[in-house]
Parts: sequence; structure tokens; C-alpha cells
Amino acid sequence: MPQHYLYGELRTLPSTEAYRKFFDIAETAVICIDMHKGHLSDAPECPCPAPRGRPLVGPIDTFHDTARGMGIRIVHVKSQLRKSGADDLNGIPSAWRLGFSEYVGGIPNIAEHAIEGSEWTDLVTRVEPGDEIVSSKKRLSAFYPSDLDFLLRQMGVKTIVLTGIMTDCCILSTAFEGSNRNYRVVTVRDLVAGTNDELEEAALKIMSLNTGLVMDSGDLIEAWTSSYVSASAGSDRR
Amino acid sequence: MPQHYLYGELRTLPSTEAYRKFFDIAETAVICIDMHKGHLSDAPECPCPAPRGRPLVGPIDTFHDTARGMGIRIVHVKSQLRKSGADDLNGIPSAWRLGFSEYVGGIPNIAEHAIEGSEWTDLVTRVEPGDEIVSSKKRLSAFYPSDLDFLLRQMGVKTIVLTGIMTDCCILSTAFEGSNRNYRVVTVRDLVAGTNDELEEAALKIMSLNTGLVMDSGDLIEAWTSSYVSASAGSDRR
Amino acid sequence: MPQHYLYGELRTLPSTEAYRKFFDIAETAVICIDMHKGHLSDAPECPCPAPRGRPLVGPIDTFHDTARGMGIRIVHVKSQLRKSGADDLNGIPSAWRLGFSEYVGGIPNIAEHAIEGSEWTDLVTRVEPGDEIVSSKKRLSAFYPSDLDFLLRQMGVKTIVLTGIMTDCCILSTAFEGSNRNYRVVTVRDLVAGTNDELEEAALKIMSLNTGLVMDSGDLIEAWTSSYVSASAGSDRR
Amino acid sequence: MPQHYLYGELRTLPSTEAYRKFFDIAETAVICIDMHKGHLSDAPECPCPAPRGRPLVGPIDTFHDTARGMGIRIVHVKSQLRKSGADDLNGIPSAWRLGFSEYVGGIPNIAEHAIEGSEWTDLVTRVEPGDEIVSSKKRLSAFYPSDLDFLLRQMGVKTIVLTGIMTDCCILSTAFEGSNRNYRVVTVRDLVAGTNDELEEAALKIMSLNTGLVMDSGDLIEAWTSSYVSASAGSDRR
Repeated sequence: MPQHYLYGELRTLPSTEAYRKFFDIAETAVICIDMHKGHLSDAPECPCPAPRGRPLVGPIDTFHDTARGMGIRIVHVKSQLRKSGADDLNGIPSAWRLGFSEYVGGIPNIAEHAIEGSEWTDLVTRVEPGDEIVSSKKRLSAFYPSDLDFLLRQMGVKTIVLTGIMTDCCILSTAFEGSNRNYRVVTVRDLVAGTNDELEEAALKIMSLNTGLVMDSGDLIEAWTSSYVSASAGSDRR
Repeated sequence: MPQHYLYGELRTLPSTEAYRKFFDIAETAVICIDMHKGHLSDAPECPCPAPRGRPLVGPIDTFHDTARGMGIRIVHVKSQLRKSGADDLNGIPSAWRLGFSEYVGGIPNIAEHAIEGSEWTDLVTRVEPGDEIVSSKKRLSAFYPSDLDFLLRQMGVKTIVLTGIMTDCCILSTAFEGSNRNYRVVTVRDLVAGTNDELEEAALKIMSLNTGLVMDSGDLIEAWTSSYVSASAGSDRR
Repeated sequence: MPQHYLYGELRTLPSTEAYRKFFDIAETAVICIDMHKGHLSDAPECPCPAPRGRPLVGPIDTFHDTARGMGIRIVHVKSQLRKSGADDLNGIPSAWRLGFSEYVGGIPNIAEHAIEGSEWTDLVTRVEPGDEIVSSKKRLSAFYPSDLDFLLRQMGVKTIVLTGIMTDCCILSTAFEGSNRNYRVVTVRDLVAGTNDELEEAALKIMSLNTGLVMDSGDLIEAWTSSYVSASAGSDRR
Repeated sequence: MPQHYLYGELRTLPSTEAYRKFFDIAETAVICIDMHKGHLSDAPECPCPAPRGRPLVGPIDTFHDTARGMGIRIVHVKSQLRKSGADDLNGIPSAWRLGFSEYVGGIPNIAEHAIEGSEWTDLVTRVEPGDEIVSSKKRLSAFYPSDLDFLLRQMGVKTIVLTGIMTDCCILSTAFEGSNRNYRVVTVRDLVAGTNDELEEAALKIMSLNTGLVMDSGDLIEAWTSSYVSASAGSDRR
């Protein structure tokens, strides 16, 4: 039986309808967040380095291939800010520009973060035909002010599976907003990375209590493919 | 000089314009979240007990009085669900009904949580004339699907100060969404409470990096009243 | 065969899948807008009189009964403003308070419009058990800043049927926003009323081109009950 | 004194504070809607022809130059749909694809409308450095699901001035949503065009009653530059 993490502890996934509804492939999309050069490049001028995300590129690509093979749609979400600065530095700036920057002792090239048309918005994970891209993320959540919610409604999606970075900010904020907007949310524990071990683990605990399920990719694939999932066939699709 | 917490450590508040803009009294409202009987009652049938919030009632009332005395507006936000169940149990249910409930070993009276017209929606903190109430919170964030954002725009508010419960779910989700929507967010460390020490501290660290400032109420009042705040008089009000 | 109005002309409803999808009873709700005393009372102090709406009360009640009998859900939406004035007069006031008021030569009791707790928010149309009420409409559209969209998602609604007042403002604004948000919209021509014949007819023409279908209630019921509707059974429910 | 249209009749603009607040240049942006080749090209394969908009290109460019010269910001909004069709044809399709298309007897190249990367999304009106572009409009309103509201907040905009096409659909839907979201809305009568004279005039009447002001460009410029506007200097900026 597939397992999930509840407050950091592995538990067997209950086979009640409330849990089985998380695994209806026809209503699921993987939302891969911010796997772009602006976080993942190892160049010294990388505007917002997230080195813990780099080892995830290969595993995420592999997972996405498996999901595509099962007919699950992939949506790549990336941050992109107008060159004018109106979206951020020249308006009300993003809060992480104060707090996170101060915490890490300053980010030299922070002003270039996510600027439209720069190489920093290039996705590092593989985009295949049939995937969708959402490029109007401008803050932490993948939902606001992007058109992700609109797109998911059009696609008939009810469950979102989160991969990418960072666990304790953009993933967590997206999990909260997705859950608030009535999506079922699965965060893939081994395919997300956070600021450090402490916040990564805490964010996963918070999500396991409040926003949906936290699972390893292997367990998630098992839930999609095993008798666990077939037991849910024909259930109410609402 | 007033201090703030950055990743759990007290630091002196920088006196740059970016920080001073958090303390413009005319553009500030306190958002007090979910201080109602459904969380705070000590009756055995309390539908979603948050006992760590009970000791905050007095201190929050005192802080609100101080804020009112300075002309700062207070907005009380509370959860409220239609009796029909359409908002939650009979639709796509809130994720915390699975995870949080399983974590604490089940919540006996959970079905009564926040039901419109029940005593469980009564506010425990004091509401004074001039305060506003937002009673259409139905998920974790105070913003969705409530009219809080609409109300704050009408009030000309740019900075929101968060008090109430719980630090690692509703406060954290509100801090994320408030920050995403370009509000400056101050979370009052000693006037919020979480699930337990671990998640409470982690949530405060996350907010200090990503959503705005984390301060004790005394420091916040000092920032509003001391020469720190007067230095910001006349600054650009955007 | 049921008919619909296209730019004011009756036409037979095409029996293509694109049209048939408007009539899936299981995914439909009737949204009845602003049939409250504040518009419909004949008292001289009525804060925003809409006398053309009064003759609709009976026919709307009858139509709602028929719809309920078929299992279609009814959602009553009404305007409601905080007593403090923060939602409107004391913030950025609603535009109709300038334009509409000037057009009709002033509205004596306009300040009392939709004030929470006053009799003016009482619904005149009949509310039955099983109906839902949305009472946080504060502007023209039934969607913003209310929780209507959230509620409809929870109810699994994809098609909304509009009744009530007024055709050229709240109905039209709701039809636009509903259509923008990917709901299929049917406006019931004989169960809505506008400012005058000219704007009512123009608004219906605009809706027939841009927001969905415009039909008489009899034709709508025929589409729901006749072989027209049964032909759509089993179609893709997205 | 500048004049405005109320229900189609020219009237002198009242010089009360409620009207003067519409003309605070520092809080104003012009929103120019859908002046792209997909509507304005005279090629036979133009996917959604709006020939009444073509004569507006020159006058709109001239008006924008005047506004820029006064420091007023210009935001160009255009429709853009994903190539996959997920935003429209392959999801829940836009309502105008049924109604408007049937009304005009079919639109041959309708499937190409607003497709990302095609020439049909090229703006025909002039874009100058300092202008902003919003390219995620996907339905009638310029606000949803685009980031226009986010951008306007960041820019500190409170009044929006509408130019472009079409008066009775995208302009009207944007005017409703802008007004609902508490923006002051001015529709520029001589710089918008509709489906035909009847709906254009009706839409302008509706907007004059319900969404804000309807003015000719000359009167608007006069209101911005004459003693009318200087009388409002120093007023409350909320």
C-alpha cells in the first residue's frame, strides 16, 4: 500500500474515499514551480540562488515523464517580472527582498531576478509538447496574479501535485492557496527543496496537517497505478 | 530602537525607508484572526480546540485598545460556514479535516466547526464600535473567499498587522496571501499562537524571511510612537 | 424545439453539443439577484427603487419551484453593506451613486441602500430549505467581492441561470463575470427587468452575443425536460 | 467647463469633490484594450474583425501622446491564448464563439484568434518606452485572468481611462469589473468603438449610469489641464 507523511512520519494511506479522491488521474495536473535559471544557475551572478534545487532537475524530469506516460498533464510555472520594475522594485517590493536577503547576507544580483526577456527566466527542467507554461507568477504563490487557476479550471483539474522550489516559500504558499481554492494538493516530498533542512521539514509538516497530502514520488506513482487507484474508479467526480 | 525577529533572532529594525514604510499608521489595520469560541471554548464539544490561543485573549484586547487609541483600525476575521454543508463537508472538504484531525487523533465535534448561527462563531476578543468584522472566511486564509481585500482597499490600508490563531495555518496562509497581494505584513509574535512550539517557531521564521516583519507587540507600538515612526512622516504614500 | 433570442430575434436552439452543454441539470444553479426590499418595496423611503422588478416576484417564485422540482439548486444573492460605510460611502463610493442617481434626479434615501441589519436587505422572493444565500454582494456583479464563485465550485456548478434585477447593471455585470470565469450563462429574458425598455433590450442583445444564451423561462424548462436535454445525457461533463 | 455624457446627453461636469477625484493625474492610467491585428487587420483571414476600430488607431495614438506628456501612464492590454487551446476551444469555450459568431454568420478564421506567437496578437497602436503591456487577457474583461489589477495596485492607480474596442463587450466588461474593484472608470466616448451604432450607444449609456464617467477625449484633457483639475489639488488621495 502507498504511504504518506503525516507530521514527518510515514503512515499507510487510508483507503477511504476522502483519500482515494486525491488520485483521479483524469483530474490531476503536476504543477512544477520555479525550476528556472534564476534559481538554479551556478553562475555567480545568479539573481536568487537556490542550490538545494539543482539535484532535483533530473529526478523531476524523470517523474514528469512517468506522469506524462500516464496521461497526467504537466504545468510549468515560472516567475517573470516586467523590465520596468512596476511589478516589484518600483512598486511595493516583494517582502523576501528584505527578509530573505538580509538573512543570507545580501544577494548581489537580486535586481535581475525574473526579469522578462533575461536568461534567468529560462526553465531548466524539460518542457515537452503537451505541457503548459504559466509565466505570470510574480510573487510566492503560483496562483496570484497568474492565470493558473483559470487554466486549471479549463483543464478540468481538481488535484494538483507540487514539485520544484522552494518548499518553505513558493511551494508552501501555493499549497495554501491551492487548498483554499478547493484543489486537492499533493506535495511530492523528494521533489521539492527548501531553504534549509529545518524549514523544509517544518513546511512539509505544516502541509501534511493543513493543505493535503505529503508523499514521496514512488508512493504517489504507486497510488496512481496500483489497485489502490483502481478501487476509486467510477467514484463521484465532483 | 524597536527590534524585529529575523529567523528567530532579535535584531534592531533598520531605519531605511523600506522598513519605515511598514509603520504608517494612517495606512495600517490590525487583522485579528479566528479568535472565536469554536477554537477557544474549553467546553468538551468545542469543534476545533486551539487551547494555546486562550491566554492571548487578554493581551490581544489590550493591544487592540492601544492601537485604537492611535487611530489604527481593527478588523476581526472569523470563519463561518453555511449550515447546508455546501462550503465544506458536502463539497470538496477542507484539507485540515483529514490531516490535522488524523494528527490529533480525531476531533469529536468537527462537523459543527464554524457553522453559521451557532455559538461557535461568537468572537471572544472584544469588538468595539469602529471595528470591522469579516465573517466570510471559509478556509485558512483570511482573504479567500472573504471580502477582506475589498474592505482593505476601501479603507486605504497598505499594511496589515496579524494577531490571533493559528500561527502555522491561518496566520501563515494569511501572511502569504497578504504579501502576495502587495500588503506590507507584520506578524505580532507574542499575540499569535500555533499548533505547538515547533511549528509556531518555524512559521515565524518563514514569515520573517518571506512575508514581512515579525515583531513583539511592544516593539511594534514603539515603532509606531517613537522617533522611528516620526522619521517616516511625509514619505511617499504609495 | 426550445428557442433562444439572438440579438432580440427568436431562433430555434441548435442541437449541437456546444449548446446542449448549457442544460445539464446536475451542473446547473439558478442565481437570483437582488430581489430584496431595498429595490422592490413601494414605500417612499425605498433606498433604490426598481419598480419594474416588482411584477417579477410571482413568476420568479414559480420558476424557482419548477427548477427545485427538477433538482436544480437556487442561490439567492443580495447586496449587503457594512453599517460603518466602509464598503461604499466612506470609501471609494459605487459609481451608480453618481450616474444613476443623477439620471433619475436624485434618490432621497440612497444612504440606506443595502445596509446590513436593515429591512432593506430582506428578500422578497421565497427562500426554501435547500436554497443557498449569498449576502456579501457589494457592487454590481454577484461575484465580487462575494463568495459566489467559491460556493459554485463547491456545488460543482458549471451553468448559471440568471433571474432578478437589473438587466442592464447587476444582471449584465454578473453575466460578463460569470462568462469570463468559464461558467455557461443563461439569462432568463422574462424573469429579469432593467432600467427601461431601451437598456433592457440592449443588455439582452449584448448578453446574447457575448455571455451565453438568452431564453424565456418556458423555453428553458422545455430544454431541461424535453428530448432536447435527454440527447445530451452522458456527454463529457467538463 | 469640461462636459460628460449622461445617458447620451452632454452635461457640464459638476465640480463637486466626487467628480473631481476622477481627474487626479498621479493616480490615473489609460487602459487601451485589444487594439491588435486580430481585430484590426483588413486581411480576409483576420480571425475576429472589428472594422469599426480601425479609424481609432490614429486618434488613440494622439491621445496617448497627450496623456504621456502629462505624465499619465499607458497600459496596453491584449488577448493572448495558449497554442494548445486549453484556454478556450479545448476547454469551456468563450461564449462569443457561439453568439457573436452566429450573429455575424460565422467567422472563418476564428480558431486563430489571439493565439500566442501569431501575428494576430501584434499591437497596432503605438507602444512607447514607459508604457506597460498586459498580455494575459483571455476573456472579455481586461482584469480576468490577467495581472492588470496587480499591476495597477503596484502603480498606485485609482482611476482608469478606457480606450479601444469593443464598446459593448470588452470595454463594457472591463468598465464593470474595474468599477466593481473600486477603480474610478472614465470611458472615452470618441476613442472606443462597438459592434454597431445601437449597441455602442446603449453600452455608453449603461456605463454613464453604472460604471463611472463617459467623456470625449477633448473634455477629458480639459478636465486634466484646466482650472477644473487644479481645484482638486491637495484633496484626500484615498
